[in-house]
Amino acid sequence: MTPVENHFFMPPEWWERDRTFMSWPVRPEAWLEGLDEARDGYAEVANAISEFEPVSMIARPDAMESAKRSLSSAVELIELPHDDSWMRDNGPTFLVDGKGGIAGVNWKFNAWGGKYHPYEDDDLLASRLLDRLGIRRFDAPLVLEGGSIHVDGEETLLATEECLLNKNRNPSLSRSEIEAFLRDYLGVSSFIWLEKGLWGDETDGHVDNVACFVKPGLIAMQVTEDRNDPNFPNTQRNLAILAEARDAKGRKPEIARIGQPPARSCRGESLSLSYINYYPVTGGIILPRFSGSAKASDEAARGLLAELYPGRTVHGIDGMRIIKGGGNVHCITQQMPSRKVNSEG
Amino acid sequence: MTPVENHFFMPPEWWERDRTFMSWPVRPEAWLEGLDEARDGYAEVANAISEFEPVSMIARPDAMESAKRSLSSAVELIELPHDDSWMRDNGPTFLVDGKGGIAGVNWKFNAWGGKYHPYEDDDLLASRLLDRLGIRRFDAPLVLEGGSIHVDGEETLLATEECLLNKNRNPSLSRSEIEAFLRDYLGVSSFIWLEKGLWGDETDGHVDNVACFVKPGLIAMQVTEDRNDPNFPNTQRNLAILAEARDAKGRKPEIARIGQPPARSCRGESLSLSYINYYPVTGGIILPRFSGSAKASDEAARGLLAELYPGRTVHGIDGMRIIKGGGNVHCITQQMPSRKVNSEG
Repeated sequence: MTPVENHFFMPPEWWERDRTFMSWPVRPEAWLEGLDEARDGYAEVANAISEFEPVSMIARPDAMESAKRSLSSAVELIELPHDDSWMRDNGPTFLVDGKGGIAGVNWKFNAWGGKYHPYEDDDLLASRLLDRLGIRRFDAPLVLEGGSIHVDGEETLLATEECLLNKNRNPSLSRSEIEAFLRDYLGVSSFIWLEKGLWGDETDGHVDNVACFVKPGLIAMQVTEDRNDPNFPNTQRNLAILAEARDAKGRKPEIARIGQPPARSCRGESLSLSYINYYPVTGGIILPRFSGSAKASDEAARGLLAELYPGRTVHGIDGMRIIKGGGNVHCITQQMPSRKVNSEG
Repeated sequence: MTPVENHFFMPPEWWERDRTFMSWPVRPEAWLEGLDEARDGYAEVANAISEFEPVSMIARPDAMESAKRSLSSAVELIELPHDDSWMRDNGPTFLVDGKGGIAGVNWKFNAWGGKYHPYEDDDLLASRLLDRLGIRRFDAPLVLEGGSIHVDGEETLLATEECLLNKNRNPSLSRSEIEAFLRDYLGVSSFIWLEKGLWGDETDGHVDNVACFVKPGLIAMQVTEDRNDPNFPNTQRNLAILAEARDAKGRKPEIARIGQPPARSCRGESLSLSYINYYPVTGGIILPRFSGSAKASDEAARGLLAELYPGRTVHGIDGMRIIKGGGNVHCITQQMPSRKVNSEG
């Protein structure tokens, strides 16, 4: 039995929330300035979210002490083995049935196409967590990271071809076979396929760095107007695709454009700086800021998100400490929806 | 007429010094934290060197003001166009004839195999500088960066095959043709070919991150004893090559081993952390430190260099700010030897 046959579907990120899961940085070689700076960055995010909703931090046995020292007492600690700390990508995708039921999808995880090793414990994390929570688990026979998909909660899925159709993920599956799995496991019926994600993004173009649903019918997208910017062609192509797109309800999505921050790189590798990697929490938005030369675009992004989410507090955090590992706020969080019957469903 | 036909040769880095040239960071997208941090890092190095010997900083017209603000009044400013700020690699290689004559080689520069654009002004910088200094210029028909070679001043050249024989540099030249140019332009007669440089080094294995001459017959080399480290196989292979090597005078080089700092990366790209990228100045050694988890190896490197260079002051600088752009102290400096007749020659 698939999730859909059990009437489960993936709710949108604005669905009533039970809590946020994160995992604690433990891979020292992944961080430019070492674990201390990374942990300070994660602690800032976890402590900020905990002012809006409950947070559970997964930490490896040898890192429990450091997590305890850095995190506010409001953050729950869960001891589990893991390799890295990108809960969006290797955590479970939680599902609801709109009638009080909850479940989780355990995707196959191969560290973004086999880029890092080891990743065995990260691949096992979703099932270990679901089992520990006593939540029904659906094992999907598909390599997929949570950051590569967005849903509007009304049967539309937004993704990039660059990532989902990449040969380093599911080389033996065609586009229609991948769509069939997404239908069966997420309860979607309509697909908006952008072409590429952010230029130089090591995730192979995760959609959560370029576009997301603000609500049904409204997509926020990071754009550049600079013709010499390497993201210019992708941005133009994705805007053209969205201009022709219709969601599962037949709506033509409106686009809210967020100006991208000035480029920065490390050893010539472009950093995937994105405001779209913000994370909605109960009553708030956690938004990365990049400071320095990005001060003006930081301010513009903050203003736009305050308009897009009226009544929510936009809480800025230091996005530079986290992006040095390759992602940002959305990449290191995983929402668990409330079990309650939700009228929005 | 080639330099050798004019009795010129490349002196070693411990040759009596006229001054050090550097160039000021101006490419904002090359720096993780933006230009401000990069400029602070460069200013620390320039100001430190200026306590040992004269320093000339090349700066683009639009960046003269910022250079003036950050640099001590002892640092001379030279206004010239340039694209990036790695004077070791696109600066001239200065030559002497041991009789008071000085000259410079203007190599072809293609931004490490075409990795960055534009690089036209960087390619022109060596000839513009030599012409401005009124120093005789030899234009070499070879793509070469200064960081890819080391000499002992007694006709031995140390390099890696990974870089000098790379198809992105001189695809139409064979090893023996490249050796012939090095003989003609640097006055060397013997070649020690290491295989590879530092793992993941975007320069394609510049030798100045793995090994250098301390004096004739003595080579300092960065090593790891960790069998799981990606540098372990290269290190072992290079040690085996050096064990069999003889220099131009028939000596078997002694090896001084410097332990490598713990690995760090940015977005999964390994940083090329190397103590071998130190820079000898008149009466001193400018040595990068990496702090944090590298504190113990920082201390060991400092102690070893103090032993290798008796009577010289080992001056530590913050190597993290500079390595974020891809190199370190040696990569951002270029020595100009004294014109004086030197008994060491």
